[in-house]
Amino acid sequence: MSKPSIPQGVRDFSPDVVAKRNYIFDAIKSVFKVYGFQPIETPTMENLSTLTGKYGEEGDRLLFKILNSGDYLSKADGQALTDKNSTKLTSSIAEKGLRYDLTVPFARYVAMRQNEITFPFKRYQIQPVWRADRPQKGRYREFYQCDVDVVGSNSLMYEAELIRIYDEVFQKLKLPVTIKINNRKILQGMAEAAGVGDRFLDMTIAVDKLDKIGIEGVRKEMAERGIGEEAVAIIESILDLPTLEAMKTIWGEAGPPVLRQGVEEMEGVYKYLYVQKPHNEIIFDPTLARGLNYYTGCIVEVKAKGVEMGSIGGGGRYDDLTGVFGLKNVSGVGISFGADRIYDCMEALNLFPANTDRSLQVLLIAFDAATHLFAFDVLCQLRTAGIASDLYPEPAKLQKQMKYANDRKVPFTLLIGEEERESGLLALKNMETGVQVKVTLPDAVELLRDEVAQMNF
Amino acid sequence: MSKPSIPQGVRDFSPDVVAKRNYIFDAIKSVFKVYGFQPIETPTMENLSTLTGKYGEEGDRLLFKILNSGDYLSKADGQALTDKNSTKLTSSIAEKGLRYDLTVPFARYVAMRQNEITFPFKRYQIQPVWRADRPQKGRYREFYQCDVDVVGSNSLMYEAELIRIYDEVFQKLKLPVTIKINNRKILQGMAEAAGVGDRFLDMTIAVDKLDKIGIEGVRKEMAERGIGEEAVAIIESILDLPTLEAMKTIWGEAGPPVLRQGVEEMEGVYKYLYVQKPHNEIIFDPTLARGLNYYTGCIVEVKAKGVEMGSIGGGGRYDDLTGVFGLKNVSGVGISFGADRIYDCMEALNLFPANTDRSLQVLLIAFDAATHLFAFDVLCQLRTAGIASDLYPEPAKLQKQMKYANDRKVPFTLLIGEEERESGLLALKNMETGVQVKVTLPDAVELLRDEVAQMNF
Repeated sequence: MSKPSIPQGVRDFSPDVVAKRNYIFDAIKSVFKVYGFQPIETPTMENLSTLTGKYGEEGDRLLFKILNSGDYLSKADGQALTDKNSTKLTSSIAEKGLRYDLTVPFARYVAMRQNEITFPFKRYQIQPVWRADRPQKGRYREFYQCDVDVVGSNSLMYEAELIRIYDEVFQKLKLPVTIKINNRKILQGMAEAAGVGDRFLDMTIAVDKLDKIGIEGVRKEMAERGIGEEAVAIIESILDLPTLEAMKTIWGEAGPPVLRQGVEEMEGVYKYLYVQKPHNEIIFDPTLARGLNYYTGCIVEVKAKGVEMGSIGGGGRYDDLTGVFGLKNVSGVGISFGADRIYDCMEALNLFPANTDRSLQVLLIAFDAATHLFAFDVLCQLRTAGIASDLYPEPAKLQKQMKYANDRKVPFTLLIGEEERESGLLALKNMETGVQVKVTLPDAVELLRDEVAQMNF
Repeated sequence: MSKPSIPQGVRDFSPDVVAKRNYIFDAIKSVFKVYGFQPIETPTMENLSTLTGKYGEEGDRLLFKILNSGDYLSKADGQALTDKNSTKLTSSIAEKGLRYDLTVPFARYVAMRQNEITFPFKRYQIQPVWRADRPQKGRYREFYQCDVDVVGSNSLMYEAELIRIYDEVFQKLKLPVTIKINNRKILQGMAEAAGVGDRFLDMTIAVDKLDKIGIEGVRKEMAERGIGEEAVAIIESILDLPTLEAMKTIWGEAGPPVLRQGVEEMEGVYKYLYVQKPHNEIIFDPTLARGLNYYTGCIVEVKAKGVEMGSIGGGGRYDDLTGVFGLKNVSGVGISFGADRIYDCMEALNLFPANTDRSLQVLLIAFDAATHLFAFDVLCQLRTAGIASDLYPEPAKLQKQMKYANDRKVPFTLLIGEEERESGLLALKNMETGVQVKVTLPDAVELLRDEVAQMNF
């Protein structure tokens, strides 16, 4: 028998980690709910016909595929078998794959249920996804995505709403962030203004790297991608404009219509966004591009302050996500939270409340068989009162029971001996201070309840 | 492009269903927590070496296997390929499988982390599992299991605790149940008393069917399984004993030690169990056997009252779950909740609270661009106050907005026109009664908050 292990790139989550992860998910969900979003869940397995071709060639390769059940070789592609051609064989022996992201299943869901859904449809979805990536630090083969989208409306109110969701969630988590926003139409307009509208993607790929490679690097990359000097100069001049206002003044009338449209959309978003002052810094960044090419309007990205980490969230407006599943002209806008990275930031900045992983409020300790049964009675009453409590399973030595109390990080113990059983006065001990008081059961409940109320519990 | 679909036997969960499912899971989790259990999560994918051979031949067949990534045929079993032998080929092209239950991954987890775990270890786990079963009504290929176990202690207190958990969860869900308990040692003792200890499994399989096939059927089945008439008579006489007390009086001294031990364990459980009166009926049923052969002590099964449905929960004491992963002599006891069946019972008996699927407390309705922006401001303030609220995304016709309010089952609307914007008095309308009141924003918050407090929200 070999030593038990788990596959590379996947994780067990122990109680303390589950508690911290739930602290993040609960904060996110509570904001989603207050904003009127509703949860859906889609299956782990999708038909490969749903998934394939949606994530590029790289994505197709990274899909986990499920071997058909039963005598799968009976329907296998004979030629591919003979040739030992893995790529070609796959489609004949695997019909299902694991969810690769939450976007495609959501689009599939909306297309399938278009007649029963009330639009605008505001949904959130927090589920794991799987990618056969090479595992490395911070990159897993199973990880949670946390998406929130509105489909079926063009209203810019939703862009503002989603940016406010970022603002509120990170405020709730006490994690200071910078929220960068831009509009893909402004990028398109920049390319057109520079006369390189056909080089739009080349330009955005270069501009997107400004943070990393500096303006010299961007210039070089644009040149390498065949964008002429003059065009580069125009693009640079637009990037240099200090504000949206300046962009509008200089390019609003004279520039390409799409640039003006992008600026106007930004203004529309701002109008709603600043109705109430956000907690975090929100920056217009004309170099922000976001990798995904399905974005067509406003785009957004979030970075944590005070810790070196890639973006911990991003999203934007898309014009056609469900078209590939036969439902045309459904505009949507959505954002995503990177739970694993948020977790790492919270750890790095020590932001998890001290008691997040506290699972027990009090441990009862009894010293013989008779008081043990009495203690179980007390335990039942504490639990009925909603106090998370436990009793050491047998009347063992005090030291052994105290060790268990410490290992489980219990803030209070309730010692129950013969004297306590007879008097009804229980010895409640604060494990941190060592202070011990004699209390009745109802008083113990009150004391513990107040403690619970003060915890993130 | 084909019509989008999902694989057979798996499900999308829409918001109303997610809400109802969470109502069940939340009730279960809240009880687990009060009882001092901690959550763990294990990965969706386990090594096939962990899973194979743990669920019998049938189980091995029903495991979903994941095709290795990359050029998987390069390492494939050449002979199996030539022979087109699917069964033989599998192990050379698939190393990972999907979680089949929560018990084996838990045992693997405990064995892997035995040095960091504090025993007794009280864990719960609520995650989906996958089985390549033929889909049929009420049987899915992806479904949630909901397990709670204590490992590392023999204390009978935990049997009582777990039975009390059943009692409390179903009380909380308002679903009346019958909880049947027995002990595998009593079954073993019955077989030994009848001189057919070697026919233990044959006997339990027959006895377990008493409910379905009656005593005549059980007699016939035992005979077919080679249990003689005399032995059957003895077994029947024990089954006929009205109480544990009677069983002890008649067989306690004279019978096989294992029978006495089983009765004594039952008494030990009862001692703790009845310290506080349970809400539901708890019945000692000597015919209860539970299919799984890893149970060695107390066993338990739950059935809903007033609805035809198989058991909605079950569990028991096992002596050696982690041995197969190299950790011997760890006794444990656990129970499981059948979430899908509980859901179906709750639906059949109409037990879900009316507002379980209510996602929105109030919808704001504005009539022109200026008031729409003002309404968004009001919306932000409502949300800051924790009221789940929304604003129709544009100042559309009243009828259209009211239809949206009804489709989203909103209990209140807040109508905001020019007059409301100027006076600061908002028109709050109860959508059920049609009553409309003029209130300030702080008053609206108070009113809505009271409403929220009254809901399961």
